[in-house]
Amino acid sequence: MRILVMKFGGTSVADPEKIQRAADRAVAARRRGRSVAVVVSAPGEMTDELLTLARRVAPEPDHRELDQLLATGEQVGISLFAMACRARGVPAVSLTGAQAGIETGGAHTRAQIVRIRTGKLLRELKAGRIVAVAGFQGVTEDQDVATLGRGGSDLTAVALATALRTRECEIYSDVKGVYTADPRLVSEARRLDRITGEEMLELAGAGAQVMQPRSIEVAERFGVSIHVRSAFHPQPGTWIVPKGDTMLEKAFVSALALDKSEVRLNVTDVPDRPGVAASVLSALAERHIPVDMIVQSAPSRAGVNAISLMTPRSFAAKAREALAPLARRLGAAVDIRDGVAKVSAVGTGFRHHPGIAARMFDTLAEHKINIHMIVASDLRISTVVDAAHGETALRALHKAYGLARKKRRA
Amino acid sequence: MRILVMKFGGTSVADPEKIQRAADRAVAARRRGRSVAVVVSAPGEMTDELLTLARRVAPEPDHRELDQLLATGEQVGISLFAMACRARGVPAVSLTGAQAGIETGGAHTRAQIVRIRTGKLLRELKAGRIVAVAGFQGVTEDQDVATLGRGGSDLTAVALATALRTRECEIYSDVKGVYTADPRLVSEARRLDRITGEEMLELAGAGAQVMQPRSIEVAERFGVSIHVRSAFHPQPGTWIVPKGDTMLEKAFVSALALDKSEVRLNVTDVPDRPGVAASVLSALAERHIPVDMIVQSAPSRAGVNAISLMTPRSFAAKAREALAPLARRLGAAVDIRDGVAKVSAVGTGFRHHPGIAARMFDTLAEHKINIHMIVASDLRISTVVDAAHGETALRALHKAYGLARKKRRA
Repeated sequence: MRILVMKFGGTSVADPEKIQRAADRAVAARRRGRSVAVVVSAPGEMTDELLTLARRVAPEPDHRELDQLLATGEQVGISLFAMACRARGVPAVSLTGAQAGIETGGAHTRAQIVRIRTGKLLRELKAGRIVAVAGFQGVTEDQDVATLGRGGSDLTAVALATALRTRECEIYSDVKGVYTADPRLVSEARRLDRITGEEMLELAGAGAQVMQPRSIEVAERFGVSIHVRSAFHPQPGTWIVPKGDTMLEKAFVSALALDKSEVRLNVTDVPDRPGVAASVLSALAERHIPVDMIVQSAPSRAGVNAISLMTPRSFAAKAREALAPLARRLGAAVDIRDGVAKVSAVGTGFRHHPGIAARMFDTLAEHKINIHMIVASDLRISTVVDAAHGETALRALHKAYGLARKKRRA
Repeated sequence: MRILVMKFGGTSVADPEKIQRAADRAVAARRRGRSVAVVVSAPGEMTDELLTLARRVAPEPDHRELDQLLATGEQVGISLFAMACRARGVPAVSLTGAQAGIETGGAHTRAQIVRIRTGKLLRELKAGRIVAVAGFQGVTEDQDVATLGRGGSDLTAVALATALRTRECEIYSDVKGVYTADPRLVSEARRLDRITGEEMLELAGAGAQVMQPRSIEVAERFGVSIHVRSAFHPQPGTWIVPKGDTMLEKAFVSALALDKSEVRLNVTDVPDRPGVAASVLSALAERHIPVDMIVQSAPSRAGVNAISLMTPRSFAAKAREALAPLARRLGAAVDIRDGVAKVSAVGTGFRHHPGIAARMFDTLAEHKINIHMIVASDLRISTVVDAAHGETALRALHKAYGLARKKRRA
């Protein structure tokens, strides 16, 4: 029994016609002899519609009840999907998270998958049925429905591939794969045949939204290869492969990302004492405020530091609030700067090849683009520039790194 | 712990505002010290919308998958209901059919409740929570979702009242109770304070649509009293009480019903042989065609019979088809007559008080209304007249039986 796990996102099952096209894919794979488990999301905007309904009933809906409510979206998706497969003459059955044995722990609305009891799933697959599994949801010890948070269906698919001991997972959505840069901004952008999970995680951190980062981490950890591809075009997409699968002989830039959704947060006049940086970050972490590009400058002669970082614009007010008491206590100042853009290059082996970073700075300088911040790791170099220069920087770097023509190793 | 079972139909939870008003009712009962279990239907037209969606995906949707799909409607209802209760400061929890321990048997889309495992329900009630239970659904031995068919939420409510050993069940809907006749047709029609389950069943058979008949049967069998009342008005409605609760000393007419949705089916020139009537009825039963008022005349001198009955107009073609082979074999003729109305009086003790039937025939004769068919039992007298005379007959009988002023025994 060669099992294939497929996953269809909300836009791929948004209406009856799209559900039928998605079912065609599953039916074709079944007829090619594969055992097929399909993770299905809530059709279209259903999750958001249910959320709106909840907020009209209760301004701050209870999380357990919100999970009970939102889980219906995927249940609608799977039952319609199974009907469509059956209408095509192929036996199929739908399973909710609970029926599929997906056990979760942790808090409601952001639960974690603890275990998948695959007994029923395997029985249905062995009986030759296409199994449509509800994404985004599982069941707690108390038989309560719990959801996995935004993008949770990706996680369901990868966890299912792991539990079913298959090494492949196809993620169908409205994007055709992973590109060297956003094709809407860079016309020569090229679809990558493959990318490592680590690089993909860095790209996500740099602002590229292709897959939920947690699902990439799980795939990387359990050696699952993910094929990100379009639900509406037959062409192959991009394989996100575990690091072990690639030959990391030389350094290269895989892709670029531009992110204009963040603001720069500066905490200045911070006393140069141990533990101060930690207290700044703890204050943000306690409120679940995402941060990227944490930089601390060397102390000035006055014995004070500055800590800078990037945070999503939507969290700016919350971040300022979180840091206010601390700033008062330390005599520090909090400054938030909007109108900036993060430009990142993601790849491998940067640490030992400083030329890659040098080329970035040279290129930006050639275009007279001033750099406000730099953070570099082995896998990513991110710079912060004025928002007005973001696209220019992206296009110039795409050319400088030769991404349009470069063919990576097989 | 004094448990109260309430049930809100789809029109009573059709939008967030109505859900909040329904929650107000449950919260008020809880604050009066009752333990409250609330059966909630799918909001508004959700069930029909899901059905339409299913038919767009598959012309004849698989029944198991249809149940999986339709059950989401009630799941949306209960979670929103529980949120609304919590927003009012009262702890509440929603339970799907499976979570509430409602076990079913029989076929998908028309399952039967086999058992309710009340452990979790009782724990939640004891913890002081309002428990919102999904109507219309249960779970099979295989953990498949199964639905109970149209009106199944009434059945859930009555079965829950039975399982929780309470003797009261409040059914909230858009009707204010049971009337002596349809108030839209008879201006003096009066709301009944109480009616027996048997009478209610006869009224349902006579065309009055207040509650699902199966749920009335179950209530009658297990001694549950049902309070049918409006979700939008505070006034009490009508109690449907088990027969044992009433003193049946004298005969009386409780209510009248007019049904213009049926046609008369005649099978004529049927040989007068044993088993022929049975074969006619079997042919109809096999196709699930509902029948009422089965009449067989005494054989004519030619040794042939006529069998007449009433069936819903929507089943007329199917009935003709079902009887065609039989009619050919027997040399009988099938005739369907539309444009008729069934006028019924429902009450108690008719058998020993022929005056009640006599008054009906007298009244119709006074108004020169010709009677095509009569069937009388101890609890109901139904006559078939021309459709054009239906309303006149109803109003005349309402007056003749003195229903507008009559006060029944306490």
